[in-house]
Amino acid sequence: MPFGPRGGDALDAALDDRDALGFVFIGRGPDPNLRYLTGREFDTTVVYVRVAGESHLRVPSTIETPEIPGVTTRIDDKPPGKAAATVLGSEATSGTVLAPQTIPHDAALHLESAGYDLASTPVLNEVRAVKDDDERAAIETVQRAARRGIARAAEILADATTDDRTLVWDGAPLSTERIRRQVNVALAIEGVDAAGATSVDVGGRERSGKTAAEDDTSAVVLRADDPVVVSVAPRGRDGYRSALARTFVVDADGGWERRAHVACDAARDVALVEAGPGADAAFVGSEIRAETAAFGFSPSEEVARDVGGGIGLSLRESPPLDGDTELAAGNVVRVRTAVSDPENGRIELVDVMAIDDDGPTFLGDPPTSLDPAAWSQ
Amino acid sequence: MPFGPRGGDALDAALDDRDALGFVFIGRGPDPNLRYLTGREFDTTVVYVRVAGESHLRVPSTIETPEIPGVTTRIDDKPPGKAAATVLGSEATSGTVLAPQTIPHDAALHLESAGYDLASTPVLNEVRAVKDDDERAAIETVQRAARRGIARAAEILADATTDDRTLVWDGAPLSTERIRRQVNVALAIEGVDAAGATSVDVGGRERSGKTAAEDDTSAVVLRADDPVVVSVAPRGRDGYRSALARTFVVDADGGWERRAHVACDAARDVALVEAGPGADAAFVGSEIRAETAAFGFSPSEEVARDVGGGIGLSLRESPPLDGDTELAAGNVVRVRTAVSDPENGRIELVDVMAIDDDGPTFLGDPPTSLDPAAWSQ
Repeated sequence: MPFGPRGGDALDAALDDRDALGFVFIGRGPDPNLRYLTGREFDTTVVYVRVAGESHLRVPSTIETPEIPGVTTRIDDKPPGKAAATVLGSEATSGTVLAPQTIPHDAALHLESAGYDLASTPVLNEVRAVKDDDERAAIETVQRAARRGIARAAEILADATTDDRTLVWDGAPLSTERIRRQVNVALAIEGVDAAGATSVDVGGRERSGKTAAEDDTSAVVLRADDPVVVSVAPRGRDGYRSALARTFVVDADGGWERRAHVACDAARDVALVEAGPGADAAFVGSEIRAETAAFGFSPSEEVARDVGGGIGLSLRESPPLDGDTELAAGNVVRVRTAVSDPENGRIELVDVMAIDDDGPTFLGDPPTSLDPAAWSQ
Repeated sequence: MPFGPRGGDALDAALDDRDALGFVFIGRGPDPNLRYLTGREFDTTVVYVRVAGESHLRVPSTIETPEIPGVTTRIDDKPPGKAAATVLGSEATSGTVLAPQTIPHDAALHLESAGYDLASTPVLNEVRAVKDDDERAAIETVQRAARRGIARAAEILADATTDDRTLVWDGAPLSTERIRRQVNVALAIEGVDAAGATSVDVGGRERSGKTAAEDDTSAVVLRADDPVVVSVAPRGRDGYRSALARTFVVDADGGWERRAHVACDAARDVALVEAGPGADAAFVGSEIRAETAAFGFSPSEEVARDVGGGIGLSLRESPPLDGDTELAAGNVVRVRTAVSDPENGRIELVDVMAIDDDGPTFLGDPPTSLDPAAWSQ
């Protein structure tokens, strides 16, 4: 396990700044904050307390007591709020305690009735937004796996033959669901988890012919002129996510796909120009949208809602690219450009961009080609 | 998407019982309660309110507004507590509002300052513990995929050759990590998500020789006499989990493995005898442990902590097999039997049991054989 606990120094600074006694986080299972603070996942609710420069974890007796370097871990089967109060009590029986504003209500009431004053803090979101070298490397490793997943989809589409415009692969009609499974196989071979986030779709294209796959009646059989959007967001073993989406067309019958793809590609490049340290996040988002518009396309509804934002242990974290934030070196940001049209479908590109002191780069810099045969692994 | 919203009737009954105005749930992303209430997953925080026999969902403008049959969905970018109060306000401006006791503290404060009295309810845990036919079928489908995953591990172990007692497969030393990836490939082919829950290990066996796999330095090269515990808990596309673990030995050099395996298998059978509707859950747990002891083995630490419990949208949910609960028809329960020994390693079997009116059955009833060559797919 290369990832140990993180965030202690930032918590201490926040405590110092607010003249507070301690910090409490109560979380469960795949909670990314808990993963950040402990380097682990838990199947059950556990309690993290930072007090007097030390990290403490309280876990129920139903799970194995983990050994985490730098974190004092004990069994405590009391309700989480009481367990937290017990840890704090060894330092002081009153004082200000910082916690995320979403701390469970029952725990907050326990802490208040034990004599502490609760105050909310955004410190976890803030510290997680700036990645260290190990975190950045972890995301880049997952992004390489993501690229292999997308490459598998490109390979299948490039290999497909056509039967009256319907795509056929490996002896059977090629559906979105068949590609999705093959992409997930490629991700599994790379040792990452698909995280339920792999999708293969044909945008808003009207379809009458659907096929019922074994467990997914929404699987659509593809035609040669469909723009096929393949999107993955796998999770590595250490919990870090990446995100990559590409659109492929086997045999375009019109110019719309190519023109829309050029617009998305150009909008993607805008991120590389604008998203340096110190840039205003909302400005970057609006410039990406403006570039799409400059090519005569409206950004798709998806991009109108979400042009991207921080990625790490969560798929969506700080900073949002629409937010009132200044980008900083260490931010790692998902960037989405997309154009959609009720008749023609959707073109979408998603990448992950790391912002360094000398500017942004796309992790792994995967190709953007619309032609699956041109997509190198 | 075969799974729509659930739980409305149970919520209405709880509201009626407590003379309450409405029920509020605030959740995010993979939250299983949110999945249960809406049939969906969300990347962001959303608000569910049940009031006047109707379900309402409030989502931020950053995500696509989902269309869910029977759920009135609107965009609301206010903080979750305020959004919930707005929905409740269309019915009444005061009254008792039920919520899980872990409702986010900031939302609870918003609701209270808006004039509502908050009261906690365990109704979600209770209703989720009793599965309907569709839910049971969903878990059984995932368990069939889990079986294919375990079968892949058995196949590899059965095919492996030995080189000075080290297992060799496909031209290279066979490590736990290589098996883990192959199991995940098999799960991906079945269309389910490994959910980060696949593990392949040799129990507590002492080892000096380790190999560094690409991204996991803890991968252990296997020997012919290692009891290899292969454990999976995949998630289907509709969110339901299953759990299956088997232990294989390629070439046992002592009798311990066989005797320990017989004990675990017998303890597993005890569940089939004891776990009918109306049985005391804690009694079932203690009987399973007692059977292991009757063969002269102490249940492993893992089983001492966790002999099993409800499984569904969560890997661990109600009823726990150690809890003060009565089992009921409709419960679906994970059952774990295991024996460990510092010198010999660990034997473990995990299954999922459905409890029907006429008694319990193991879903899919997969074989338990210790010999990988005898494990049929």
